[in-house]
Amino acid sequence: MGEPLRTGATDRTTPSRDPRRASYDLAEAHSILAAALIGHVGAVRPDGTPVVLPVAVAPDGDRILFHGSTGSRLFRDLASGAPVCLTVTHLDGLVLARSAFESSMNYRCLVALGTAEVLADEDKQDALRRLTEHLAPGRWESLRPMLAKEVAATTVLALPLTEFSITIRTGGPADPDDADWPVWSGHVPIRTEPGVPVPEPGSENRPGPAIPAALQ
Amino acid sequence: MGEPLRTGATDRTTPSRDPRRASYDLAEAHSILAAALIGHVGAVRPDGTPVVLPVAVAPDGDRILFHGSTGSRLFRDLASGAPVCLTVTHLDGLVLARSAFESSMNYRCLVALGTAEVLADEDKQDALRRLTEHLAPGRWESLRPMLAKEVAATTVLALPLTEFSITIRTGGPADPDDADWPVWSGHVPIRTEPGVPVPEPGSENRPGPAIPAALQ
Repeated sequence: MGEPLRTGATDRTTPSRDPRRASYDLAEAHSILAAALIGHVGAVRPDGTPVVLPVAVAPDGDRILFHGSTGSRLFRDLASGAPVCLTVTHLDGLVLARSAFESSMNYRCLVALGTAEVLADEDKQDALRRLTEHLAPGRWESLRPMLAKEVAATTVLALPLTEFSITIRTGGPADPDDADWPVWSGHVPIRTEPGVPVPEPGSENRPGPAIPAALQ
Repeated sequence: MGEPLRTGATDRTTPSRDPRRASYDLAEAHSILAAALIGHVGAVRPDGTPVVLPVAVAPDGDRILFHGSTGSRLFRDLASGAPVCLTVTHLDGLVLARSAFESSMNYRCLVALGTAEVLADEDKQDALRRLTEHLAPGRWESLRPMLAKEVAATTVLALPLTEFSITIRTGGPADPDDADWPVWSGHVPIRTEPGVPVPEPGSENRPGPAIPAALQ
């Protein structure tokens, strides 16, 4: 692959409807990833059927890091160069129009396509540190260091943000023709919130964890 | 396809690692769907690459309803019988172990495989009512009725819960070997919460919408 397509716009990433909502802005991709804890990874099984599984994600410059067990079929397939689609969705609200047809959802969705790079052993620790710090800021230095066998048992993949699309919907319904229909209309925001940390025995008196930026 | 595999357990739905967390319980699938607003649909494009997109979902007995535009490439492919994977994930918490390796997430994930049934025109209205009532309870009867052209522009698909797996993780870390490592350990719950409804002009004085069960 040559110079990355910074705009991400290809035939595969151009929605077949409502292209007005699409964007290919790398800064917007970073913003969606900064707010993300998980994404959904899609791959094609050897029998030609699709599989979609959730994975923890973290941004690393212009690529998305995710990891799994070396024993996972999905990660074995992806590590051997299978095409991947990694989709990160934030559901931001329900859009309640005056008709079912115009009702919708508010969301920010990043769809990234390509082939994931397998990180070599010498790069894994740094990537695992980034993943850990993204999900649990400030903890890496305090944790029991990774064992060689743990690093060996983990596949870390990086999907470059070269071919991607972003779809964003915000605000209320767009149904001016139905403005006089007598039903409540508007939108209901949805937020993902952290609850009160639950300590394990022995941790009750330690300072609790920082909340990741993705949950703030 | 003959009698549905009620347990959902097939080679494709048996995780390649940590099978202890897997289940094939239909009641558990219903419970995950009752709490879901969206899922992620995976399909294989004609060029053999995967695509994963978010869709609104609703349960309908032992099948999952989802819908999209007849103009959508994904929905055209699925309507013509392409194999589909529909994954519904609830992220319930961060699991902060004393090591990065044992750190994890709490979640409930339903992965359903198969081929989606295309609902005929005479069944679409009922399915769209179910989808609407799932996302916005009590609204269907109050909404401006669907126009024939709106029904015609919508593909409604039903994926039977015949081949599926459920993976659930709950609670704190499982890292007894590290119990003495001096760092806070435990888990942080994550909740998806509705915010204050935002009315459109003209709706300010109408009773606001009911919150869907999935957000309660």
